[in-house]
Amino acid sequence: MIQPKVLKGFRDSLPKQEIVKKKVINTLETVFSNFGFVPIDTPVLEYKEVLLGKAGGETDKQIFHFVDNGQREVALRFDLTIPFARFVAANYNDLTFPFKRFHISKVWRGENPQRGRFREFFQCDFDIVGTDNENADLEILIMMAQALKALDISRFTIKVSHRNLFNNYLKTLNVDSESTEILRSVDKLAKIGKSEVFKLLVELVKEKTIANSILDFISIGNLNNNQEALKKLTELFGDKNEDLNRLKSIFNNLDELNISDNFKIDTSITRGLDYYTAIVFETFLDDLEEIGSICSGGRYNDLASLYTKHHLPGVGSSIGLDRLLAALEHLGHPLLAHPSSSDVLVINEGDEFNRKAQVVTNQLRGANIATQYYLLEKKVLNQFKFAEQNNIPYALFLNKEAPYTLRDLQKREDFSFSSVEEVIKHLKGN
Amino acid sequence: MIQPKVLKGFRDSLPKQEIVKKKVINTLETVFSNFGFVPIDTPVLEYKEVLLGKAGGETDKQIFHFVDNGQREVALRFDLTIPFARFVAANYNDLTFPFKRFHISKVWRGENPQRGRFREFFQCDFDIVGTDNENADLEILIMMAQALKALDISRFTIKVSHRNLFNNYLKTLNVDSESTEILRSVDKLAKIGKSEVFKLLVELVKEKTIANSILDFISIGNLNNNQEALKKLTELFGDKNEDLNRLKSIFNNLDELNISDNFKIDTSITRGLDYYTAIVFETFLDDLEEIGSICSGGRYNDLASLYTKHHLPGVGSSIGLDRLLAALEHLGHPLLAHPSSSDVLVINEGDEFNRKAQVVTNQLRGANIATQYYLLEKKVLNQFKFAEQNNIPYALFLNKEAPYTLRDLQKREDFSFSSVEEVIKHLKGN
Repeated sequence: MIQPKVLKGFRDSLPKQEIVKKKVINTLETVFSNFGFVPIDTPVLEYKEVLLGKAGGETDKQIFHFVDNGQREVALRFDLTIPFARFVAANYNDLTFPFKRFHISKVWRGENPQRGRFREFFQCDFDIVGTDNENADLEILIMMAQALKALDISRFTIKVSHRNLFNNYLKTLNVDSESTEILRSVDKLAKIGKSEVFKLLVELVKEKTIANSILDFISIGNLNNNQEALKKLTELFGDKNEDLNRLKSIFNNLDELNISDNFKIDTSITRGLDYYTAIVFETFLDDLEEIGSICSGGRYNDLASLYTKHHLPGVGSSIGLDRLLAALEHLGHPLLAHPSSSDVLVINEGDEFNRKAQVVTNQLRGANIATQYYLLEKKVLNQFKFAEQNNIPYALFLNKEAPYTLRDLQKREDFSFSSVEEVIKHLKGN
Repeated sequence: MIQPKVLKGFRDSLPKQEIVKKKVINTLETVFSNFGFVPIDTPVLEYKEVLLGKAGGETDKQIFHFVDNGQREVALRFDLTIPFARFVAANYNDLTFPFKRFHISKVWRGENPQRGRFREFFQCDFDIVGTDNENADLEILIMMAQALKALDISRFTIKVSHRNLFNNYLKTLNVDSESTEILRSVDKLAKIGKSEVFKLLVELVKEKTIANSILDFISIGNLNNNQEALKKLTELFGDKNEDLNRLKSIFNNLDELNISDNFKIDTSITRGLDYYTAIVFETFLDDLEEIGSICSGGRYNDLASLYTKHHLPGVGSSIGLDRLLAALEHLGHPLLAHPSSSDVLVINEGDEFNRKAQVVTNQLRGANIATQYYLLEKKVLNQFKFAEQNNIPYALFLNKEAPYTLRDLQKREDFSFSSVEEVIKHLKGN
């Protein structure tokens, strides 16, 4: 006998998890489609060189790669961004720009699984490429908010900043604006607090006044409201700074559309280690900020320069699906309550009723009521237990006295009906 | 620059393909859920030993396998059946039986890509395990028919046979009932015809009368109707044969449910090389039989004996999703016509109208009308071209004279409205 074990860092998805995941994914896909975004898919396996570039390097150890039977160096994709860049370059002539795509699929990384990290996990990416237009920035931000609202999440904050404003500010302080150490320190503000970040900055820039200035800048997000933050930024950059004016215009539009409540200017957001060049954003659940951003992204200068000469500026975002699901579970979100396989369990009352049960089951399904006929002739109590374990809310009996008895299994209430149509009507009314 | 190429046997899925694939998958999932089947998922990567058994052997060359960074022998799954068996064994105590699951996902095989075969492709499996009950057989058959009907396919035939009846018939002829050569020859009936199969059989069984008997048996499917076929089988096996009586009972139930039209007894169906032990079935499109079965399966004795001592009889089926999609395309099925990213393109009429356009776009989306606002300020003709390339049926102008003009892009008809509500009403009415 072989042990039916899965690899370290990999998981089975049981029905109760998979039902919820599918519900979340379907909801997201509906929102994305509603915004005119289209789905694409790419191969799970690609040339290693295509995914890692010619150098390979550091990332090498973190990804699953091997030599296939045809002696090709291949690798499992470790994100959806690089395959997207490759996809756009390869299919450039078959696409129309601005191109708006979403892609929800698995990626793989070899990192040591710990603290809720897995070697196989989902990413959910959406991007608009082919324009550096402000409308595209706005659309991505609006869609992020709509996606969360469609999942019945209302208490969230999308923190927005502008990477180039920050870089320019560092330049005015004569600080190396490309310093990853500074970006890394700044990124820690929410986690370790002002005084710790100050210490880190002093070590890096050597001067307390400069460290203080940086700290002041990244604290603009703590101001009471967005108008105040924009005012403060205008004091720093004047009213002719294009980057700042775009940020202003975006927030004015969000106001105009009555959806600015979920958006907050927060200059401590830099997404330091990424290739962003303009607006950047992260999303936090107000009731579980500590879990980290559940949806992040920003604007970049050129998506696919590694594969094509076509210049493709864009803006995009990514939902951390596994983290989001973990957060919803933690918060006891209704979406995760009682994932059920069916609405009704038709009780198996033995051979005598078998054909009738088949016909009734068929009728209920025809009315789009998810129906199981319990396939075995077992004691009714066993069948109730099956319903309970699968969160099926109703049981239907085809007894002789009243042709149809529907039992609400939670309330333990019985209803009698003389026809299947009546049963359907009752169920649809609930 | 790196060539943005994909591996041999792998494909990108462009929006027009992916939109259709998602539509098909969503439709199937809705039907499966309606029948009380639940989704599961398993890791793409598993221990090689778990997938191939201790022997490894022949299949070895056909699958993607490698040694990971932790020195584990791992492999990409090459079907969804073995992972399902492993899943049920591993999660036995968390499942309720009979367990009805579906799984629609990618699998990988290293075979040489040819004639529409790919190294990465989709499988769509559904099974009921934990019972050898006739109701389970019936449910799988009904669900197959419902799934195809839900895809607006009506001209199809599910050919049903019984593997054990065939084996028993061979035994009465004193022919080796385990002979894969005989099963292989019989399987070719539809492809190469009676006389060629006869030649093959004569070579194998050496006697013309025996070959003729086998040919007679497998030709029962050519009889006019199922009752005639069942009568003929009763002549051969008597009326006390349990296998035959189950087959009869299944067809009586299909009659009772008024769905027997799409089902046909065909004794030439053996699914010879698989592990089936009772009913077996294949599904053909009446208008494209030559493409082969698009949905096949049968009943098996024990799903997971490799991994657990729990005895798990079951019945299951698998839709060849890529083949089905190819067939639908070949037949010009309406499902594949004009996959569109949106219902309406809001025309970009420049900065002056930008904010109004954002608001209107937002309103349309709020009414669940998939809407794009064209993100760039370009000539209207360019915007029309974008709509055409993306099969967007309507364009909306926010011009001054009549506040809203909706253009039907195919009929080139204009409609004027004084409010967004009217626009929505018009679009919903179509």
